[in-house]
Amino acid sequence: VIKFSILVIGTEITQGYSRDTNSSVLARILTGRGFAGHSIIKAPDSIDVISRSIAYLRRESNILILTGGLGSTHDDVTREALSRALGRDLELRDELKTRMERLLPRGADEEMFFKQAYLPAGAEAILPEQGSAPGIIVDGDGCLIFALPGVPREMTSMMGAVIKRIETKFPEQPPQEQRVIKIFGAGEPLVAKKIDAVIKDYSELGFTILAGIEEIKIIISAFAADDSYMTNQLERAKNRITESLGELVFGFDDITLEQAVGSELKRRDIKLFTAESCTGGLLSQKITSVPGSSEYFLGGVVSYDNQIKAALLNVSQAALERYGAVSKEVATEMAAGARAVSRADLALSITGIAGPGGGTPDKPVGLVFMAISDNSVTETQRFDFRGGRDAVRRKAAQSALNIIRLYLKKLR
Amino acid sequence: VIKFSILVIGTEITQGYSRDTNSSVLARILTGRGFAGHSIIKAPDSIDVISRSIAYLRRESNILILTGGLGSTHDDVTREALSRALGRDLELRDELKTRMERLLPRGADEEMFFKQAYLPAGAEAILPEQGSAPGIIVDGDGCLIFALPGVPREMTSMMGAVIKRIETKFPEQPPQEQRVIKIFGAGEPLVAKKIDAVIKDYSELGFTILAGIEEIKIIISAFAADDSYMTNQLERAKNRITESLGELVFGFDDITLEQAVGSELKRRDIKLFTAESCTGGLLSQKITSVPGSSEYFLGGVVSYDNQIKAALLNVSQAALERYGAVSKEVATEMAAGARAVSRADLALSITGIAGPGGGTPDKPVGLVFMAISDNSVTETQRFDFRGGRDAVRRKAAQSALNIIRLYLKKLR
Repeated sequence: VIKFSILVIGTEITQGYSRDTNSSVLARILTGRGFAGHSIIKAPDSIDVISRSIAYLRRESNILILTGGLGSTHDDVTREALSRALGRDLELRDELKTRMERLLPRGADEEMFFKQAYLPAGAEAILPEQGSAPGIIVDGDGCLIFALPGVPREMTSMMGAVIKRIETKFPEQPPQEQRVIKIFGAGEPLVAKKIDAVIKDYSELGFTILAGIEEIKIIISAFAADDSYMTNQLERAKNRITESLGELVFGFDDITLEQAVGSELKRRDIKLFTAESCTGGLLSQKITSVPGSSEYFLGGVVSYDNQIKAALLNVSQAALERYGAVSKEVATEMAAGARAVSRADLALSITGIAGPGGGTPDKPVGLVFMAISDNSVTETQRFDFRGGRDAVRRKAAQSALNIIRLYLKKLR
Repeated sequence: VIKFSILVIGTEITQGYSRDTNSSVLARILTGRGFAGHSIIKAPDSIDVISRSIAYLRRESNILILTGGLGSTHDDVTREALSRALGRDLELRDELKTRMERLLPRGADEEMFFKQAYLPAGAEAILPEQGSAPGIIVDGDGCLIFALPGVPREMTSMMGAVIKRIETKFPEQPPQEQRVIKIFGAGEPLVAKKIDAVIKDYSELGFTILAGIEEIKIIISAFAADDSYMTNQLERAKNRITESLGELVFGFDDITLEQAVGSELKRRDIKLFTAESCTGGLLSQKITSVPGSSEYFLGGVVSYDNQIKAALLNVSQAALERYGAVSKEVATEMAAGARAVSRADLALSITGIAGPGGGTPDKPVGLVFMAISDNSVTETQRFDFRGGRDAVRRKAAQSALNIIRLYLKKLR
């Protein structure tokens, strides 16, 4: 097994002020190509710490990717640290300097800027498409080391060169093959129980269940591609799980719930409108995060105040007074009103108590009613979500998408 | 300087499928208390890799926190790895087992479940308030080691005990003192230039600029609290930066732009309504993410389709046809209409092209018009945002909040 490690460099990351997204991007790419993750280290902008981390990781891994610290400020010390860890001096590369002269910003400190033209002896440069800092490749006694910029799009623009170089050095690595099944509408224990028998029957495959608010993912992996037996096993396990989970499965691989719902609305040429209270626009924001959503989404009303429910959605004063804004009755009137004012084919409403304030013993925080309305019928559903304001809102928006999904499924 | 390291355990993290948030939470807490971050390692569920990471990090640090791998499944191997790294056997603790007998889920594998009652020789348990897995404290020859659960709320519920123990062992550590200044409305180079002189004048302090789509943060740090000279320096630097950045500064410390806008609307008793097109509800979702926002936010219309702009916001067919939906004129009518239909004091509208489709040479992707309308006047603004769909939408929503902020500031 070929092992890789990642070293993420930056004091803003080790102090917790900035979130590292590079390491998970890199890890997914390399894992997907069949390499085994060893460690991910995050280190501050210290030559000493970085060079010792490099020394440790190169003993442990076949591939080491550093990201961050290649720019032209005082904090950027990755080049120096790499040079120290390898015991190789930094050398000025004239061709890099020539290239960089064109990029020198007006008023910049030249000496600092041209730091970026130095590489450790024996290293190769990866010329950047974006930004000014070149990436670095060093083959250091068995461990292939890459140093890449920390800015995510500068880093990803170099990944083509990185992968090519890795595959030249480790040509026989069979890429790992995976299938991902996406689920919404049940908890992890139930899902785990339902697929337990499949896991036992396919002991050559790996199964991982990842549960979150937005979805549950089941990842099935085989360490052997271009192997028809294993591919066959993967497909069979995927099909058995999909069958046993039934309508809990909303899609496969990278699809999101809003994409699954969107493509079904588009296919059936159904126009949707939403009426949101406690989610405050989260549902419509999710729906419109999908490119092309204007083909099936007309829009929505965020009726945070009761007056707006009455003025824009024709909710009756009687229902608001008798049952309260968070009630089955008001959810029903919101959905029916939303459909009427927008002339959409389908409308979905959400009204609830996201908290932290506003709960009562009768109507606690987390109580949410939703209604779905088409040209013949309006159906309501009650939810009692647990968690803080953010969790309640996210669960409500996702459950609303799921109501639409199941409605479309029933249409046949 | 007392150095800390963090070891995050879980194959789902090293493969990039699950995002680690624990390490940044831990790093912020420990950095804030004056400890210096050494390294953060993420390791897969492998006894071998974890125990070697522990061995490496305990040589390098005074405090080591492990998180994850303490539960009762086959993947949970942190206890075994810690035992191997320390060269100390795992022992059954009767008091933990007794406690756990009450928590045993029906049908669970008893042997696996009671794994959680084993600790390395000489270790202490941190009893969990949530979940079943106890935390572990071991004082290992100069390095104080903690093993905590990976579930974020289980981990944070143990942080009180962790901090108490750390402060008993390292009592004299002066906590680091920080000030954070929050900025919106200018790029990082301009901000850096404007505060350059202050950074030079306060060489004893540390300055970090973190730029993102939602805001720019300037973090000023001093490694000495309860020291009136340094506190004084911090305050002076903060005041000078705040003065030189003027109305770019929207707040301090942990405040967000939506909170800053919300508290100002509340203070002035101004009711807001929104009309969104390309942002699809992102603006109202942000506004309502603040608890108590119902006191100043009436709601909004997401008018994705032109028909909705006409039906719910009274936008004229003439303006839509002559100028197009993405125009100064339609933005103006949207804002005026939004205020009229909602009877709000203030309305803000957004119309633009988020992409990837829909752009033309005249009206490219990223073109966005916004208008703000009160009882006397409607003002519009044009933006040309760069980036993909998600970036354009986020920049637009944040710029809309900033328009409201600057409007309120001018009111005096």
